Amino acid sequence: MGEVPDIVIGRLPIYLRALKHLMAADKEFTSSQELGRILGIGSAQIRKDLSHFGEFGKQGTGYEISYLSDQISKILNVDRDWSVALVGFGDLGQALAHYAGFASKGFHIDIIFDNDPAKLGESAKGTPVLDVSQIGPIIAERKIRIAIIAVPASAAQAVAEQLVDSGIRAILSYAPITLKLPEYVRVQYIDPVTHLQRMTYYLA
Amino acid sequence: MGEVPDIVIGRLPIYLRALKHLMAADKEFTSSQELGRILGIGSAQIRKDLSHFGEFGKQGTGYEISYLSDQISKILNVDRDWSVALVGFGDLGQALAHYAGFASKGFHIDIIFDNDPAKLGESAKGTPVLDVSQIGPIIAERKIRIAIIAVPASAAQAVAEQLVDSGIRAILSYAPITLKLPEYVRVQYIDPVTHLQRMTYYLA
Repeated sequence: MGEVPDIVIGRLPIYLRALKHLMAADKEFTSSQELGRILGIGSAQIRKDLSHFGEFGKQGTGYEISYLSDQISKILNVDRDWSVALVGFGDLGQALAHYAGFASKGFHIDIIFDNDPAKLGESAKGTPVLDVSQIGPIIAERKIRIAIIAVPASAAQAVAEQLVDSGIRAILSYAPITLKLPEYVRVQYIDPVTHLQRMTYYLA
Repeated sequence: MGEVPDIVIGRLPIYLRALKHLMAADKEFTSSQELGRILGIGSAQIRKDLSHFGEFGKQGTGYEISYLSDQISKILNVDRDWSVALVGFGDLGQALAHYAGFASKGFHIDIIFDNDPAKLGESAKGTPVLDVSQIGPIIAERKIRIAIIAVPASAAQAVAEQLVDSGIRAILSYAPITLKLPEYVRVQYIDPVTHLQRMTYYLA
């Protein structure tokens, strides 16, 4: 199979989330039409996205939910647990460290870093806060590949470079700047202001 | 001008953010090439996106940053302040209520709601936490159009419906479910797990 467009990869987690909800509601089968209604996405789009990876549905019965969920989990490499490093233990970092939704999906915040000496005694769910000077040795030693950045915009680029130098290959950044990193590093951004601004366009 | 695709609208806040950074660095002019390098977006894409709204650049000198920034702000309706209601004052809600990045971009969290009686005495930056039973009258009275939902997934759909009934027309939801709402309501989602899962695909 050829290279799958990243925008298709970006929709798979949404499909997976919907499938988990259907499973939680004890449903066994679904269809691209039902998924489309739940997600507000066209059913043809869903069929086309899934067709990049094989044949998952049967004419007449549709998709077996647990099978399709397992397959998408495998495709996304989320049929295993991942260690995650969190940098920044301010208000946002603390909220993220306590967020139950990560661990329940296999993402475990196993290390927390901050540059504020006052925070070094603190911890979240038993995970202690370490000094940022430890980023290099600890991430390399534990072979962690994923990091979440929750530091101010002014510190984000330097932190990101330090993470990448230590072996991090995927970064979820909450800092409102675009990071400049090597192409082999995956970066996703969460900036709530850009989401709000995208909606005010329609509130004329 | 015809209807502009929502994906184009979604990129304007990113352009605006980059322009503000260039302004903060005392730059006066930029180009689609420079913006493209900063943002990792093709320069042709940027020119095409902006062409939906008029002619902003000049051959040779490029874009005047403050002018383009003003124009994009007007297009997005962010050349004014917006009142925002926040529902949910748990860890995440508290982090959002204290986040300085909203007010600096003109989004003011003027009301906070929670359903936990123990939280009703609390406040963030002087904004008191009110009971969710007040959502209807207060949002209608203050004519608030934008809300942020930071409640558990199980409560999100009911809260969203209550908000829409009260006049909310744009919702930024942190709850990890897809909301079912009338088409005239704009909804944006922030679910960090879906971002992480989009990246683990590439960490084979």
